[in-house]
Amino acid sequence: MKLKDIKEITGIIEIKTGLHIGGSNDEIKIGGIDNPVIKNPLTNEPYIPGSSLKGKIRSLIEWQFGVVDDGKPVSVVDKDGNKKKNFEKAKKIVKLFGNGITIKNSQIAKEIGPTRVSFADCSLANKDELLEKNALTEEKVEVTIDRFTGSVGGGGPRRMERVPAGAKFRFSISLVEFERDKDLESILALGMKLLELTNLGGNGSRGYGKIEFSEIKGLDEKYLENGKLKSYEDLKKLAGL
Amino acid sequence: MKLKDIKEITGIIEIKTGLHIGGSNDEIKIGGIDNPVIKNPLTNEPYIPGSSLKGKIRSLIEWQFGVVDDGKPVSVVDKDGNKKKNFEKAKKIVKLFGNGITIKNSQIAKEIGPTRVSFADCSLANKDELLEKNALTEEKVEVTIDRFTGSVGGGGPRRMERVPAGAKFRFSISLVEFERDKDLESILALGMKLLELTNLGGNGSRGYGKIEFSEIKGLDEKYLENGKLKSYEDLKKLAGL
Repeated sequence: MKLKDIKEITGIIEIKTGLHIGGSNDEIKIGGIDNPVIKNPLTNEPYIPGSSLKGKIRSLIEWQFGVVDDGKPVSVVDKDGNKKKNFEKAKKIVKLFGNGITIKNSQIAKEIGPTRVSFADCSLANKDELLEKNALTEEKVEVTIDRFTGSVGGGGPRRMERVPAGAKFRFSISLVEFERDKDLESILALGMKLLELTNLGGNGSRGYGKIEFSEIKGLDEKYLENGKLKSYEDLKKLAGL
Repeated sequence: MKLKDIKEITGIIEIKTGLHIGGSNDEIKIGGIDNPVIKNPLTNEPYIPGSSLKGKIRSLIEWQFGVVDDGKPVSVVDKDGNKKKNFEKAKKIVKLFGNGITIKNSQIAKEIGPTRVSFADCSLANKDELLEKNALTEEKVEVTIDRFTGSVGGGGPRRMERVPAGAKFRFSISLVEFERDKDLESILALGMKLLELTNLGGNGSRGYGKIEFSEIKGLDEKYLENGKLKSYEDLKKLAGL
């Protein structure tokens, strides 16, 4: 197994609808928001954690390949270290993203090799534009309407902090390619498309976190059109599905 | 459980009567309006939150299926995690929109699977037309008439901000289909029709928020006629009701 190339795939993530990736409140501020987004403590700017990107793309790819069985990240081996039934199907996913649990059998570990892809945290690309409008983040207030009374039910309003639609982040994904690695890039491209078709971060089913990749560089041209990802149908075919 | 397809249903929401979906006032402006509508802080344009679309469509579908019991969004399990009586009836709704509370029993969670539908926030489609008339939003003043004096009662006039009739928004609904998912699209189509027949946002009973879906793409042709939804009767039949 020999390293052939390390691809750096870069570009812009455009936020199409407000994005909420939850952070933690270290300090309690008077008048502070209940559900803050994750921010860099040095600059106080929101960012997109690589963990959110990787986790969502991986889970979508797992659904697409039909290898989800117990709700956990897919593994090619069971607890006792034996090959699972879906070994061949899950192998590509595990090569790309890593195995759900540590592979103890050295023969299998050798066959899989190290995790190929890594998603960097994404920093804000158009900070000045956002700051000009005083809108690094927005506050969105939501309520659950009680079906009978027609007024606010279920514990009162929720106050959510979001990165507003129109924000842009710089992303960087690195893909390690070994000799005889095949098709892994096509799976990554399909996973990125699946993310565009669904959503990133919390509360997606009620409108949050629609994103689009643009100005993509470093990914093979056959997956791209004008710096954006080709259609879902095209990318499924290219991934052999 | 394997992902079969992700449908992207898009089109236009036409505002037929002034729409009020409340926003929050971060800053108090002199001469500002009492009840503002929700706006994107970057562009200052009003938008329709996916949460309003989803919440209203879900509650209408719950009424249609007769599964509303305590005023809260319907669940298939009770607080202790046991199947509720209406499990079979509510299952489709919960597959589509998500369960009201987290399902802890992994067997039931597996049967339901992840939430299938997500409603993106809808951005303004005819901004230039509205700006030309200087009417991104309108102000409507209302009063309650005192029954005896025949003049203004009940705390004086209410000043409401509304998106004016004639505004158009772009919508995008994504529907994840797993193998063996049946009838979910028909429920979504019926829910959209129910929304047209009622209203969106606040103060519906006094005239606000009549909307119509048009230029619909991505929904199966059997639900459509000239890019609009078929009649309520037709859609009820197609949903098996």
